[in-house]
Amino acid sequence: MRILVVHGPNLNMLGKREPAVYGLKTLAEIDALVNRRAGELGVEVTAFQSNGEGDLVGFLQDNDDADGLIVNPGALTHYGLSLRDAIASFAKPTVEVHLSNVYAREEFRHTSVIAPVALGQISGFGWRSYLAALDILVDVLKGGRQ
Amino acid sequence: MRILVVHGPNLNMLGKREPAVYGLKTLAEIDALVNRRAGELGVEVTAFQSNGEGDLVGFLQDNDDADGLIVNPGALTHYGLSLRDAIASFAKPTVEVHLSNVYAREEFRHTSVIAPVALGQISGFGWRSYLAALDILVDVLKGGRQ
Amino acid sequence: MRILVVHGPNLNMLGKREPAVYGLKTLAEIDALVNRRAGELGVEVTAFQSNGEGDLVGFLQDNDDADGLIVNPGALTHYGLSLRDAIASFAKPTVEVHLSNVYAREEFRHTSVIAPVALGQISGFGWRSYLAALDILVDVLKGGRQ
Amino acid sequence: MRILVVHGPNLNMLGKREPAVYGLKTLAEIDALVNRRAGELGVEVTAFQSNGEGDLVGFLQDNDDADGLIVNPGALTHYGLSLRDAIASFAKPTVEVHLSNVYAREEFRHTSVIAPVALGQISGFGWRSYLAALDILVDVLKGGRQ
Amino acid sequence: MRILVVHGPNLNMLGKREPAVYGLKTLAEIDALVNRRAGELGVEVTAFQSNGEGDLVGFLQDNDDADGLIVNPGALTHYGLSLRDAIASFAKPTVEVHLSNVYAREEFRHTSVIAPVALGQISGFGWRSYLAALDILVDVLKGGRQ
Amino acid sequence: MRILVVHGPNLNMLGKREPAVYGLKTLAEIDALVNRRAGELGVEVTAFQSNGEGDLVGFLQDNDDADGLIVNPGALTHYGLSLRDAIASFAKPTVEVHLSNVYAREEFRHTSVIAPVALGQISGFGWRSYLAALDILVDVLKGGRQ
Amino acid sequence: MRILVVHGPNLNMLGKREPAVYGLKTLAEIDALVNRRAGELGVEVTAFQSNGEGDLVGFLQDNDDADGLIVNPGALTHYGLSLRDAIASFAKPTVEVHLSNVYAREEFRHTSVIAPVALGQISGFGWRSYLAALDILVDVLKGGRQ
Amino acid sequence: MRILVVHGPNLNMLGKREPAVYGLKTLAEIDALVNRRAGELGVEVTAFQSNGEGDLVGFLQDNDDADGLIVNPGALTHYGLSLRDAIASFAKPTVEVHLSNVYAREEFRHTSVIAPVALGQISGFGWRSYLAALDILVDVLKGGRQ
Amino acid sequence: MRILVVHGPNLNMLGKREPAVYGLKTLAEIDALVNRRAGELGVEVTAFQSNGEGDLVGFLQDNDDADGLIVNPGALTHYGLSLRDAIASFAKPTVEVHLSNVYAREEFRHTSVIAPVALGQISGFGWRSYLAALDILVDVLKGGRQ
Amino acid sequence: MRILVVHGPNLNMLGKREPAVYGLKTLAEIDALVNRRAGELGVEVTAFQSNGEGDLVGFLQDNDDADGLIVNPGALTHYGLSLRDAIASFAKPTVEVHLSNVYAREEFRHTSVIAPVALGQISGFGWRSYLAALDILVDVLKGGRQ
Amino acid sequence: MRILVVHGPNLNMLGKREPAVYGLKTLAEIDALVNRRAGELGVEVTAFQSNGEGDLVGFLQDNDDADGLIVNPGALTHYGLSLRDAIASFAKPTVEVHLSNVYAREEFRHTSVIAPVALGQISGFGWRSYLAALDILVDVLKGGRQ
Amino acid sequence: MRILVVHGPNLNMLGKREPAVYGLKTLAEIDALVNRRAGELGVEVTAFQSNGEGDLVGFLQDNDDADGLIVNPGALTHYGLSLRDAIASFAKPTVEVHLSNVYAREEFRHTSVIAPVALGQISGFGWRSYLAALDILVDVLKGGRQ
Repeated sequence: MRILVVHGPNLNMLGKREPAVYGLKTLAEIDALVNRRAGELGVEVTAFQSNGEGDLVGFLQDNDDADGLIVNPGALTHYGLSLRDAIASFAKPTVEVHLSNVYAREEFRHTSVIAPVALGQISGFGWRSYLAALDILVDVLKGGRQ
Repeated sequence: MRILVVHGPNLNMLGKREPAVYGLKTLAEIDALVNRRAGELGVEVTAFQSNGEGDLVGFLQDNDDADGLIVNPGALTHYGLSLRDAIASFAKPTVEVHLSNVYAREEFRHTSVIAPVALGQISGFGWRSYLAALDILVDVLKGGRQ
Repeated sequence: MRILVVHGPNLNMLGKREPAVYGLKTLAEIDALVNRRAGELGVEVTAFQSNGEGDLVGFLQDNDDADGLIVNPGALTHYGLSLRDAIASFAKPTVEVHLSNVYAREEFRHTSVIAPVALGQISGFGWRSYLAALDILVDVLKGGRQ
Repeated sequence: MRILVVHGPNLNMLGKREPAVYGLKTLAEIDALVNRRAGELGVEVTAFQSNGEGDLVGFLQDNDDADGLIVNPGALTHYGLSLRDAIASFAKPTVEVHLSNVYAREEFRHTSVIAPVALGQISGFGWRSYLAALDILVDVLKGGRQ
Repeated sequence: MRILVVHGPNLNMLGKREPAVYGLKTLAEIDALVNRRAGELGVEVTAFQSNGEGDLVGFLQDNDDADGLIVNPGALTHYGLSLRDAIASFAKPTVEVHLSNVYAREEFRHTSVIAPVALGQISGFGWRSYLAALDILVDVLKGGRQ
Repeated sequence: MRILVVHGPNLNMLGKREPAVYGLKTLAEIDALVNRRAGELGVEVTAFQSNGEGDLVGFLQDNDDADGLIVNPGALTHYGLSLRDAIASFAKPTVEVHLSNVYAREEFRHTSVIAPVALGQISGFGWRSYLAALDILVDVLKGGRQ
Repeated sequence: MRILVVHGPNLNMLGKREPAVYGLKTLAEIDALVNRRAGELGVEVTAFQSNGEGDLVGFLQDNDDADGLIVNPGALTHYGLSLRDAIASFAKPTVEVHLSNVYAREEFRHTSVIAPVALGQISGFGWRSYLAALDILVDVLKGGRQ
Repeated sequence: MRILVVHGPNLNMLGKREPAVYGLKTLAEIDALVNRRAGELGVEVTAFQSNGEGDLVGFLQDNDDADGLIVNPGALTHYGLSLRDAIASFAKPTVEVHLSNVYAREEFRHTSVIAPVALGQISGFGWRSYLAALDILVDVLKGGRQ
Repeated sequence: MRILVVHGPNLNMLGKREPAVYGLKTLAEIDALVNRRAGELGVEVTAFQSNGEGDLVGFLQDNDDADGLIVNPGALTHYGLSLRDAIASFAKPTVEVHLSNVYAREEFRHTSVIAPVALGQISGFGWRSYLAALDILVDVLKGGRQ
Repeated sequence: MRILVVHGPNLNMLGKREPAVYGLKTLAEIDALVNRRAGELGVEVTAFQSNGEGDLVGFLQDNDDADGLIVNPGALTHYGLSLRDAIASFAKPTVEVHLSNVYAREEFRHTSVIAPVALGQISGFGWRSYLAALDILVDVLKGGRQ
Repeated sequence: MRILVVHGPNLNMLGKREPAVYGLKTLAEIDALVNRRAGELGVEVTAFQSNGEGDLVGFLQDNDDADGLIVNPGALTHYGLSLRDAIASFAKPTVEVHLSNVYAREEFRHTSVIAPVALGQISGFGWRSYLAALDILVDVLKGGRQ
Repeated sequence: MRILVVHGPNLNMLGKREPAVYGLKTLAEIDALVNRRAGELGVEVTAFQSNGEGDLVGFLQDNDDADGLIVNPGALTHYGLSLRDAIASFAKPTVEVHLSNVYAREEFRHTSVIAPVALGQISGFGWRSYLAALDILVDVLKGGRQ
């Protein structure tokens, strides 16, 4: 079982900017945490970050044999309709994650064009959002959705 | 450490209606799962369901010595401003959960008046939403939000 | 065959306020008229009024073995999403009634959150709205909807 | 006592299209049912159908000595302001009927420009909507609106 | 010099309905007043009324050799885009008239789809609106618009 | 009988700017034309122009013994609610005039806050708008509004 | 003369939460202040608080022999249409009060569904809002509204 | 195989008005071109133009044995819901055509109430839009939609 | 302690217009009442009225040594952003008053651009609004806002 | 004569996803069909697909010596303003194509930011949309737009 | 070459209020800086400040022989349509300046009714906005806009 | 001191397209002018252009040791939320520039998602916008913002 973990624009700067909003951990540290948890769960993880929407779309197309997707679309959450179509086309269970509670920030961050094509959302828990997403996605993939 | 688990209107009918949307488990079964997990985590859980917004507000006021809140506001998600004010007044870490992916349902379910006063949201994973909420809330309460 | 007749907030004041809008009959008189007609039609009626949305939801849950519903949601028509979910969950033919022509009153009364989950609407005919609703609901229940 | 029954655009195709939405009865069959009920009630009915808004307006003007109106405006419900003005000018009790529950269909069908000038609405009960409209209109005309 | 005077839906009922809003004169009386003034001004007038938008469009097409247009579109003011296109195609100076002050009536009467293709508007002066329109239109046609 | 003629901001520049839109005549020339016509009609005219909304309000208050008002509010048409209140308080028949067809210009010029408190509007006929307004206002004041 | 003082959801927590917004006094202290002032004014006060809209509606119905109402609807200000209908039905002079200046807070707090059925509003002065409301309501009840 | 070609209001004026927008060909010339192409494709064409929405609806009802429809709704594109319902009822493959690129014209021309019930749209290519529509419609009818 | 009392456009006409809405007292009478109450409270009052927004702004700038402000902005309530900025710059406790309940009047009167920079609002109580505003403002200035 | 054929994000997945919506043909098969038709028409075609908006813009800039453009913008249709500017800058006849009838899908797909800078649109005919676009574009380029 | 520098309402209070937003320099100091720079550039400057829109309009009319305009409209930016018309009538190159970045402040400050009639905007740089405006305006006036 | 100068999509075509809107200078010429001015000011400039949002984001991340930013986002101004987040993360003084006055162009160009995270804006002055931006940015960086 292989899970994709996709990070959108600017997330490579985690731990280096606005720690009050995004926390202190770098993306590498988060990927390491996710990998360790994946090992415990007996699944494989392929992580990818890009600032370009086209590259994110391409990564999903190139990895459409994976079993599930965890995606933090960054600012593309609000206008990335190409990414949305790619996720819909990927057609595997997808969990949308956000580090911060987007509903407590600027108005434009309250709308997600990704959410309707995801299985569910986890937002507001910093790096823990990713770990919870992995736990639940593996659980769904293994057990179905009773 | 004591966690409140609050279920809003109609959630007492879980397992008895629209299983394609809400799953097969009853509320009692979900509460039992949450309690078992709480035992594993070494925390206490107090669960409450009501169809009346006033009762939900009252429950929060009567239990303001608890340490955290997991709330599935049901339809109050979209208009329950009194519940929102009660959660803001409760002023402990709060996780908003939804069984279904509300963003893939009717338009009016895309707006949450609760979200801005919560720490984060978990939605779309059926009964697993509650368990993930408990895990993450206890983790936040124990470890802070680095 | 048993039909529920549910009256929302403030309808217990019928006959006592604004007769130009709501007519001269009290709720008890309307219930009596409905009961008499039910007797003629050979069906049983259970009537209920509450000013609290939670109680209305509870009544529907407690009587989900009934065969149909006539509901005058009062002001909940315009924001009572919990009541809406309860009616959807009830899942029996439902007729929404209004005493006055809500479309000839304030703008906010033109929107019904209940209508999409009802079989149909009858509005504007005073107490006659209830009798017409009973006639038609029994007719539908007996004959199906050809 | 004479009642007008006016059917708007496309209603002459009833029974020939989309029976799942509009039922199996033709317009002629519905008119026959209405006439039979009118006979029982001791009133006269004049029915008219047209696809052209101008003809519908003209029919109302030519029959302004009638005592009441039952109108199913079809798609004109949503934009037929000329028909609306004609009904307002007609100035007799008017019942707006719809075969289907328009509130459970496309968004644009949720708005009626006719409703504010009608006495009331009956929608969602197929051909029964017409019969209920006739019953209630005759009742109102005979007894006033207490 | 020939001027068209076009009256939209329901205007044939003038003097017979709502005199508080529309005045006491019939359409025939207004046409007579317009004709008399036209005689004084030395111009010819062709008047036409229809309840059907298609007929109004056809009249304009059949008379495109006229020199100017006075149009009271009635309720088509607010949605008659076919009439608008016909007036734009007619391409002669056009004066839009209304008997009542539409801006002091229902909200939906505040928007005119005809206004952008007219030379100007005169509204609120009852039958005098037509006479003023004729005076000014003839003046413009004779003298240009300095 | 005395009629006020009130010109709003920038109208003192008529004849000096954008002649394609506003025509070639200066405000003095228009006032002279209006005065001459007033003489023919046997009424007195008091004209006033100001760029300041407060001064326009004051002029109306100081002349509340006049019998009618012709007002070209200029850009205040779209936001001058103080002028609107002053006209409503003046409470004599008021004609709103515009030189150009405001509905064929920028979107923001399509809304008038003055229109609901006027008797009627005349717009689009250049300086002729004023003369037509005077004619019709005197006619209404002399003859009432049959 | 008897005045009702009605406090909506969460107001029983006054003095215990967010003192920067709501002040330091408890609801009991405010009620005591209101009672003392009532004594000075020679009127009787009946105070009531509930978190449930239905209970608030019921209280108004049960006390419709009172002479006036002071109501702080809390969050129901923005969606409590049932409460609005109950106040309209109560039909005695009603003063809407708010502790904080709702217009300087979140956008959703700028709209009041209660305001159109009240005599007036007093907001932004903490507990003083209640005392001013009592003074003015008694003054109005005694002296009429010259 | 028989194809209907329906032209809406004002299209009978083609070649006579605004050639910069609509081109130089008359409707008769376009119909001739369509007929010639139909001959080459071995299909029959029945063309119809009317300025009245009711007549267009009637034509579709009278020809419901045809195999496909090419419709240029003219201004009805934006409000002709009766025509929309007639096309939906017709229930054969329908191609919506426009001579001009409606998206490069006035804002109100950007919305089509017809589009959702058509198979597809071709707009912006003048008379060529009709020929392309015929080609593609016959192709679809013959070959299905692989 | 010195309090400014600022009356906006048209308020100098109080007692002379629409007494059903604004009451019978003139502005001079209201100012006298305010002055008498100020004497009782031991504070000084400086009153000012102008129809011009610029003058109102200037008055506030020239009196920025005052201790508080009572302002009835009249129609400027809804668009007077310059006055708003002047009040924000004045930076002393400000009470916004209205004679009538603006929320029960035209839609455009429901929005106040002044409210967000005021301490609070009192509206709907006629001249009593001013006296209540003075009482409460002096109370706040003397006692702080506990 | 050389025509560009530009495919936007995700279109490289054609034939591999959602065949019910997008058909069974792969992009390579469509390109082959287009090339064959181009050969018949005696024109050259250069096809390009990218998931990145920047690359699509660059391709248009690098090929600005081509004579025309067929573009299926995919999801960029709805937000790709950079692509829009590039097409406007390209300044050759452009045909916008869509495989599916975008107006019968989600609301957000009803708006095209590309349409105003195209010559016309063809949508809803699957791969045939491309062939019709090629036919008509070559026809326009050869014959102008009479 | 003479340049007008126009300051709108409240700007005479610069340096005296909210220095965190508007900076520490008074308007006199800014005017002195602008004059010094003008001297260096060899142009003449005429500065004017008023709190009244009418006065600002009048100043522009009285100085229409000047060669360019720098205008900081203050709050009139958002509703001063009379000032807008005056600037459009002035018809010389105009630079709109703002001390603060209006897009980072309240929502209502994001819209400028002045911007469409200006050559360009400079905002957010405090007093430096004026100097940059002068530099660029003189440069444009001397060199044209290549 | 090092300043970044970032040009968004399509700006590499400057001088080659629509000179009436964008002027005659190429991007290379503008960069040369900026460099020369930078030399005079004693600062270093690093210029970058890309049509891809991801590349622009990457450039900012790779150069986060620079001291300031001048950015012309091109069409990304209106939807480039990823670029916005990158600028916010860059966290150095940023000047947004536009060659044309975007407020005098299409409606969609009136909104900037970049503006709220910039220090200020300069728009409408062609290539001079860049030079003014450089002057002012260096001045701010050297002198702070008094």
